[in-house]
Amino acid sequence: MDVFEWFSIIGTIAFAVSGAIVAMEEHYDMLGVFVLGLVTAFGGGVVRNLLIGVPVTTLWSQGLLLKTAVFSIVIVFVLPTAWIYHWKRSEAFFDAIGLAAFAIQGALYAVEAGLPVSAVMVAAMMTGIGGGMIRDIMAGRKPVVLRDEIYAVWALLAGLAVGIGPIRAAWALLALFAATVTMRMLSVHYKWRLPR
Amino acid sequence: MDVFEWFSIIGTIAFAVSGAIVAMEEHYDMLGVFVLGLVTAFGGGVVRNLLIGVPVTTLWSQGLLLKTAVFSIVIVFVLPTAWIYHWKRSEAFFDAIGLAAFAIQGALYAVEAGLPVSAVMVAAMMTGIGGGMIRDIMAGRKPVVLRDEIYAVWALLAGLAVGIGPIRAAWALLALFAATVTMRMLSVHYKWRLPR
Amino acid sequence: MDVFEWFSIIGTIAFAVSGAIVAMEEHYDMLGVFVLGLVTAFGGGVVRNLLIGVPVTTLWSQGLLLKTAVFSIVIVFVLPTAWIYHWKRSEAFFDAIGLAAFAIQGALYAVEAGLPVSAVMVAAMMTGIGGGMIRDIMAGRKPVVLRDEIYAVWALLAGLAVGIGPIRAAWALLALFAATVTMRMLSVHYKWRLPR
Repeated sequence: MDVFEWFSIIGTIAFAVSGAIVAMEEHYDMLGVFVLGLVTAFGGGVVRNLLIGVPVTTLWSQGLLLKTAVFSIVIVFVLPTAWIYHWKRSEAFFDAIGLAAFAIQGALYAVEAGLPVSAVMVAAMMTGIGGGMIRDIMAGRKPVVLRDEIYAVWALLAGLAVGIGPIRAAWALLALFAATVTMRMLSVHYKWRLPR
Repeated sequence: MDVFEWFSIIGTIAFAVSGAIVAMEEHYDMLGVFVLGLVTAFGGGVVRNLLIGVPVTTLWSQGLLLKTAVFSIVIVFVLPTAWIYHWKRSEAFFDAIGLAAFAIQGALYAVEAGLPVSAVMVAAMMTGIGGGMIRDIMAGRKPVVLRDEIYAVWALLAGLAVGIGPIRAAWALLALFAATVTMRMLSVHYKWRLPR
Repeated sequence: MDVFEWFSIIGTIAFAVSGAIVAMEEHYDMLGVFVLGLVTAFGGGVVRNLLIGVPVTTLWSQGLLLKTAVFSIVIVFVLPTAWIYHWKRSEAFFDAIGLAAFAIQGALYAVEAGLPVSAVMVAAMMTGIGGGMIRDIMAGRKPVVLRDEIYAVWALLAGLAVGIGPIRAAWALLALFAATVTMRMLSVHYKWRLPR
């Protein structure tokens, strides 16, 4: 298992947990918690696959990630609420790992499919933020990523880097990964916002 | 026409009518009533097909079901409002038939596609509740199935039974159908809820 | 470049601008403005392709339309707000051109795919109004087209005309286009509504 698989697992956990927490904040029941957790973790990849023409059924070969997501959601559901508030403080870091891992992975899929740079950027962004957008819509909220966070821009830039550049070697991808995580954490810390 | 086709027809009517009623409750116009009715009846099957890799265009070969749905929506639209309240009292029963028929049908599609048990369960659930979820989102509501009903669990369990078990014979499928309808009606009657 | 390509460009601009304006009205940031603009311009075509079985990836061969949409959104974003109110008064006309061009284009796609009349009508309607529906849902609004506008009916009728009729020659398509734009503008001017 290479290092990117570890990043995918961390990202899946972060996204599944964030979906489960949103569902609990909206007083959804156990089913709602599971559905929102799974949709947040896998929804972005499904939409990306639809847009770049990769079979959606590859979803079902990700048995390890599916199990990881289900297990994480169970933990969130049974943990005391106080612990969850504790998680929310370190959430941004795990979330940044998920964003970076998924964006780079999405961009590589689009490059393999032979698509133009515009498609590579959209694939990177949708894999990174699509799940969170569907989560918010299913929770009756306006997608937070469209309003208050610079979040998605780092996914777009990672997609641009993969789309135009010769970033294919493991070390180059790792450097891009580290840069994306760093920019995301800096934007959280300094509360960077996009102009309106 | 076998007995399962009859169940599909009853389920299509129940789902189309529920979509049309939600649209009228939200003061949507005639077009909105049709769109929500059709989306509720067919949206779950479309999402299921996307997720398990069955061509979405099979939708257009279901001429009888499409006509049945359109006809049901017309009836709802022209009927006096008082009659609709009358319907709502027996709605749960028809809805249970639709849920059970669609969940079992969805599970069988996923089994035919050679997918793992997790996919069979998701296919059963999405066919049973996907249309209602899209209906609620298009009506500006939070999906009721994620909050207040044990509804979807019976679809999941029907999917589990088809996915792991040797349930293929007509009598076994009928028994599963009857069990699903019964559990759904019992949950309505005793107001069973999932934990939050 | 034939005349229908010009109509597609005008429609893409009108739809992209309407999405950008809705995002600004909801106080979305720059990313939200771009996402809503692009979703409004291309979302209807994506959903139509899914429903009629055309590869979604044809999206990425529309480089000219993608660039046109991005450029239009940039203009909206930097223009003073007062100018945007000015646009909103002539919006209906450009929007009518987009609706008619997209509806006819969507219907022709479904006819080429060998689908029945019901599919041709749905394809015409989804191409015409799908983007606006997704825009409204992502903005946390109830889709305006389902409530207050006779809008979609002209797309449905254009689809019916293409689906049942021998309308294939350029002059016949142009006449259908002109009729659709005219009916849309008449409905705006006389405030026609569908019954509820």
